[in-house]
Parts: sequence; C-alpha cells; structure tokens
Amino acid sequence: MIQDQVTVKELVERRDWPALRSRLASWPGSDIVELLEQLTPAERFIVFRLLPRPLASDVFSRLSSSEQDTILQGLTEEETRRLLADLTPDDRTHLFEEMPARVTRRLLQLLPPSDLDEARSLLGYPEESVGRLMTPNYVAVRANWTVERALQHIRVFGKSSETINRLYVLDESGRLIDDLELSRLVLAEPTERIERLIDGSFVSVSAFADREETVSLIRKYDLTVLPVVDSSGALLGIVTIDDVLDVEQQEITEDFHRVGSVSPIRVPLRDASVSVLYRGRVVWLLALVFMNIFSGAGIALFQDTIAAHVNLVFFLPLLTASAGNAGSQAATLMVRALATGDVHSRDWLMLLRKEVLVAGAMGLTMGAAVSGIGMLRGGPPISLVVALTMFLVVILGSLVGMALPFVLSQLKLDPAAASTPLVTSVADVSGVLIYLSIASRYL
Amino acid sequence: MIQDQVTVKELVERRDWPALRSRLASWPGSDIVELLEQLTPAERFIVFRLLPRPLASDVFSRLSSSEQDTILQGLTEEETRRLLADLTPDDRTHLFEEMPARVTRRLLQLLPPSDLDEARSLLGYPEESVGRLMTPNYVAVRANWTVERALQHIRVFGKSSETINRLYVLDESGRLIDDLELSRLVLAEPTERIERLIDGSFVSVSAFADREETVSLIRKYDLTVLPVVDSSGALLGIVTIDDVLDVEQQEITEDFHRVGSVSPIRVPLRDASVSVLYRGRVVWLLALVFMNIFSGAGIALFQDTIAAHVNLVFFLPLLTASAGNAGSQAATLMVRALATGDVHSRDWLMLLRKEVLVAGAMGLTMGAAVSGIGMLRGGPPISLVVALTMFLVVILGSLVGMALPFVLSQLKLDPAAASTPLVTSVADVSGVLIYLSIASRYL
Repeated sequence: MIQDQVTVKELVERRDWPALRSRLASWPGSDIVELLEQLTPAERFIVFRLLPRPLASDVFSRLSSSEQDTILQGLTEEETRRLLADLTPDDRTHLFEEMPARVTRRLLQLLPPSDLDEARSLLGYPEESVGRLMTPNYVAVRANWTVERALQHIRVFGKSSETINRLYVLDESGRLIDDLELSRLVLAEPTERIERLIDGSFVSVSAFADREETVSLIRKYDLTVLPVVDSSGALLGIVTIDDVLDVEQQEITEDFHRVGSVSPIRVPLRDASVSVLYRGRVVWLLALVFMNIFSGAGIALFQDTIAAHVNLVFFLPLLTASAGNAGSQAATLMVRALATGDVHSRDWLMLLRKEVLVAGAMGLTMGAAVSGIGMLRGGPPISLVVALTMFLVVILGSLVGMALPFVLSQLKLDPAAASTPLVTSVADVSGVLIYLSIASRYL
Repeated sequence: MIQDQVTVKELVERRDWPALRSRLASWPGSDIVELLEQLTPAERFIVFRLLPRPLASDVFSRLSSSEQDTILQGLTEEETRRLLADLTPDDRTHLFEEMPARVTRRLLQLLPPSDLDEARSLLGYPEESVGRLMTPNYVAVRANWTVERALQHIRVFGKSSETINRLYVLDESGRLIDDLELSRLVLAEPTERIERLIDGSFVSVSAFADREETVSLIRKYDLTVLPVVDSSGALLGIVTIDDVLDVEQQEITEDFHRVGSVSPIRVPLRDASVSVLYRGRVVWLLALVFMNIFSGAGIALFQDTIAAHVNLVFFLPLLTASAGNAGSQAATLMVRALATGDVHSRDWLMLLRKEVLVAGAMGLTMGAAVSGIGMLRGGPPISLVVALTMFLVVILGSLVGMALPFVLSQLKLDPAAASTPLVTSVADVSGVLIYLSIASRYL
C-alpha cells in the first residue's frame, strides 16, 4: 500500500482530482483514513468529497470526532443528508453522542422519519450502555423454516444487515431462542428444518448492561457478533466485534492512564487539548503532593536524628524509591491480572502467600545490596540500619501494592485507581518513618 | 449460567458422574473451564474425562499449560491420541510449544504421519512468528467457478475448516488472488462466476512476520480472519481473530509489566512461580537502586547546605516525587498512544509543543501550591526556593517522560521499556540536583 500511497500523494499535489477519485475508489477505508491524516485540512476536505458514496461513510465513521465536525461544517445540506443515510445506525449513534448538542440537533433534522425514530430510541439507552453500541440491522429466521427458505430470506433481507455470518432464530413474539452461524446453514441439507440445526444454547446481553460486558462475553465465548435483548428476551439488535474491540481498547487506555495517575483522557492524545491534558494530570499531582507532605512531616519528626547523622539523608531516596518500585511492581501485576481475569478475588490468600515469599526474597537481595553501600559510606552501624530498613520497606511496599488493587476491587472500585504513584506515595511515607525510627533507635 | 453451575457443583460433590456428563455435554467450552477452575485437581481430572470428544479438545485448548500438563500425565495413550487428533493444528502447535521438550517428543510420536508432517512444518516457523499461529484448514475456491460449484465444494470440504466465513480464491499455482466472504456467495446468483464477485483487493500476512503484525492488520481492516502467505504469495493457512486477540492481550500485559518495571511474566499470574516473579522483579529493583545512588550522591554533594538548613530535607520527598509523578504521567500517555497508533513518530514536534504548555501550566500550579507550605515551614526564602524548584522539576520530569518513549521507539526499542520507575528515577536525580543547587545558591 505504501508504494501506492506515494503516487496518490503526488496526485494530491498535482491536484489531479479525477485520477485520484478513480484510484481511491478501490482502496479500503482504513487506508484512506491513513492518507487523510497526512494531508492539510484543505486537501483533506477535497479528497473526502471525491470519495464515492458507500466508501465516504465508511471513511467518515473512522475519523476522530474533531475531524468529523470539520468535515460536516463544509458539506452542503444535501451532502450531509446523504452521508447520514449511508452511516450504519451504530455509527450514527456514536456521531450524535460525540458532536456538540447544537450540531446533533441539526443532524437529527436531516434524518428521514424512520431513521429519526431509530436514532432517538438508540440514544435513549444510557451512556456507556450496550444499547448505544448496537445496530438493529440483523437477519432473523424462524425455527420451523427449512434451510432453503431461510437462505431465500437472507438473499432478500441480508444486504442491508451489518453481518449475516450469524442469524437469529426468533419465536412468534420476537423472543430470541437461538443463534445460528451462516456456515451451518450453508453446510446443511436445503430441506432440513432450522429447529434441527439449533441447540438452544446462546449468549446474549441486555441493552442496558454496561458496554464493558460485551468485551468479556465476546472474548470468553470467541464470538464475532453478540445479540442484544430487552428484559423479556426480545431481540433488539446486534453488536459486532469491531465496535466491541474499540470499546476494549478505550478501556485499556483508561486503565493505563489510571495506573499512570492521569484521569482518563477519552480523546486520542493527538487531539487532546492542552487544557484537557492539564486538568487530567494536575489534579493527581496536587493530590499526591499531600501524600508527600506526610513524608516531609516524618522527616521533620526526626530532624534531630538527621542533624546528628547527616549522611543518613544519602540513603533516603534509595530506600523510599525501592519501596515504591517494589509496590508499583506488585500493583501493576495485580491490576492487569484482575483486568484480564487471570486472577479472581477468591485467589487473594494464595496470592498473598506468594507475594510474602517473593517480597521476602527481594527484601533479602536488596538488603544485601545496600549493606555494601552502607558500609562504604557510613560504617557498620549505618550499614546495618540501611539493610534492615531496605528489607522491611521492600516487603511493606510489595504488600501494599498487592493489597490495594484487591481492596478496591472488593469495594467495587476500579483496581487501576490503585495507581502506581499512589502506591509509591504510601510506600514513601512508610519508608521514611521506618528508616528514621530504626535509625534514631540504634544510632 | 451461574444458577446452573451451582447444581453442577452439587453433582460433583455427590459424585453423580452420569448426570454430570449429560449436563455438561451442552455447555460452552469456556463455561466448563470456569467450572474446572473451582474444583480440586482430582475432581478436575475426573470431570475432564467425562467430556464428550469434540468438547474435550475445546476445553483442553483453553486450559493453562500447567493444567494441560497435569491432564496429559493422567490420560492413557489411546485417550491422548484421540485428544491430539481432535485439536486444531494451531492449538496443537501451541501445546507443543508450551510443553516440556520430553512431553512434546512423546506427543509427536502419537500423531498419525500426515498430522506429524503438518505439526513439524508449523513448528518450523520462528517463535513469535505468524506461522506458529496459523492453521492450514481453510477452504479455497477458483475464480472461474460458479457460485453454485463453490457452494458445493464448501459443503464437501467446509466441515473440517476452522472457519468458512471467508473463502480464498487461488490461481492454478496456489497463489492467493483474493478473499471472499461466504455471505457474498450466499447473496449472489448461483450461476454467477466467482471472478465477478471479487475485486482483487485483500490483506495478507507473511508466515515469517512477527505475530504482532496480525494484531494491527486485523484491527485496522476490521477482519475476523487473515490469510497467511509465503514469499511467492502462495496461501499457507489462516489466522483467526480469537488467536490474534489472545496474542494482543499478552502483548498488552507485557506493556503493563514493562511500564511497572517488571520483566514480562508470560504465564498467568495465578500460575507464576515465586522464582519467576522474583527474577522478573528483582533485576529491575536492583537496576533502579543504582539510579538512586546518584540521588544520594547529589545529596552528599550538598551535605553542607543540608547541615546548615535541615528543614530543606522536609521538601525533598515532595519535590522529587512530584517530578517523578509528572514524568510518569507523560510517559504513560505516550507509551499507550504509541501502542494504539494514536500518535506516530512524525507527531513528536506537535506533541512536544503541547507538552511544554501543559507542563508549564502544571509547574505554575504546583509551584504556587508548595510556596504556601514553604512559607509556613521555612519563611519567604525557603518558600521561593521550593516554588522555583517545583516549577522547574515538574517541567523537566514531564519532558523526560514524554521524550524517552519517543527516543526508544526511534531506536526501534519498545517504548514501554521507558518504564515509569525509570522515568521516576531520572526525575528524582535531577530533582535533587536542581533543588540543592538552587538552595545552596540563594540561602
């Protein structure tokens, strides 16, 4: 594709729009998005308008919301109407969610009545719910149909469906009774009845469930599409894996951000404004300063010991940082394992036992390592104090780092909020206190 | 399912194996795995042996390698042979990769000659390559066939294929010329020729490529299955999205671990031994101690200043921690954005400019916040020194945190290795030096 892109960029530079239009018509949407990202805003708009109809909506749905906004501002009313009509219902919901309210109102007015009703009902589901992700474009069949009749039905109604790789078997009242892969239909005898092909075992999700639930279901049961039902079990729509994977990627990014003590930034980093970034970060920095005041207070408490042995200060950053590092290691391992489902709350005792052993071994190693440095810089008594402190703070830091994500998950809070800097700060404070109380006792 | 599981656990307790066998036969494999995790090893083995044939291999392929090993130890030769025969070729490769060499040798001897050849050729691809993930069970069709002939072909050969949602169009020499969704075939006229349905645009991957490449291709082009080709373009096999998602989850876990300064632990945390955890963590703890010795040395350099103003030490943890936190925030944002492709190397100048603004604003806020504390604890001169230092170290920490992942990615190294503690340590050292040099100059 790269080779091809070079010449396409030349076409853009030469402003050879007819040649460009025919070239791009056969490109996958995601490659066109990649091309657009490398163009100036003016060129981007021109190239977007060159795209033939179904492709344009595909490309549009892959753009960031700020780019979508820019493009919408330049389109005529008729062009906007056409673009909206080509978008799938779930992409439309996403667009209406992301655009400023003023723009969304204008866009809704451009929808034909049936699409407007659909859009309103989809937007009626709570934010972050499965309902906001789904599309009502699926193909349903009846249990008493033959395979042949089902295939005929698919030929008529399948073209407007988001996917027909999986079909849904409904009873008379629209309740979902099973799902069926298209491939099973193709492999079956044409005269076979659908009810002979199904086993009554299927996975569905409520439209009101948290959209994160789709991620775990799709992963757990290796699905590519998930049916969405209401409380009576009636089929409302389907959610496809590509949308679910986008949700998951966002959730993982939020976990990363929380672990790094940033309030989750929900827009791509490229598009995040200075003020969004500032607000997402400064809150945590300020909060953590207050934690560190306790470290400072700990130091103030032992001011006399420090004044008497100034070389104690040499080891202070080393000890607190090691405690913090051990803690952030433990927290990272635990946060991720809880997120992937590798460990469950019921495993905590087994994990605690293991952590005590790991932390003990690390404490011994680290204690031995710093005792040498202690010897060189302060003689035997300092060396002993430093080694003993190191042993204790590595164990303490590890246990805090391991326990905090568990406690949070028990409290139904996000374990990722046990962010590394939070654990580090707790480890810092206790490191200072342990170090200086041991020192003031033995020196 | 939960309701059902309760009674199933009762069946296990009552040792009512016949009832359990018939109950489990209709369960999805992943639910059975969940049940097994809650049983004792002895019960687990009994329940596993109750599973009917195709289900047993499905469940087996979802178990962790240590559990697979335990089960294999208990099975008879004939049972093992049957289990191996039911596994898909890619699951078999995975099993042979993970088992101890001694076990793998024994297992290979139980394969019939054709499966043995296949297994050997799949294991011939480099570790972590696409070849190790693929299965040769796909369905290929010819461009000059009619839709009807293709469907007949699928009915004969489709049952043993891993998926038939996507078919592959080959030329006479086995070279891949296009892919085709089963749904397009179903929607087309039976007399239509395949060549009329295809557009010659497809995405494929080399068997020798890094398996991470499958992740980005599947995500970018919204695929559920990806064809694997050799250097001449001949189709070798396919990789399905469930395997690709497992690879991705592992890669993300490794990124989390690196960010948390743990050498990636490749087994689930539950199964990781104390010694694996110890080795993965202590190396980094020791490496980071050496970074912190520089902080200590910085302090030693200014020992006289500290002795003269012991209350300077009060602010030391506060300042170094804030620098470190700002740095780890920036690093986290950047590492994740590089991993998702939200930012590219070419964006660095724009991001640097933004980071300078964000960091400047955060530095001002944090400086103002600590100047108050400085006033209370040390009077105007200390307050000024602390505020100025805070301003500078927050900016410095942020820029280091932002730059390190970029530099690493330019050097073709993993940006996640710019782990938070590494950035924190760099920020620590420079924090100490900046603080004490400002202090010794102005106090």
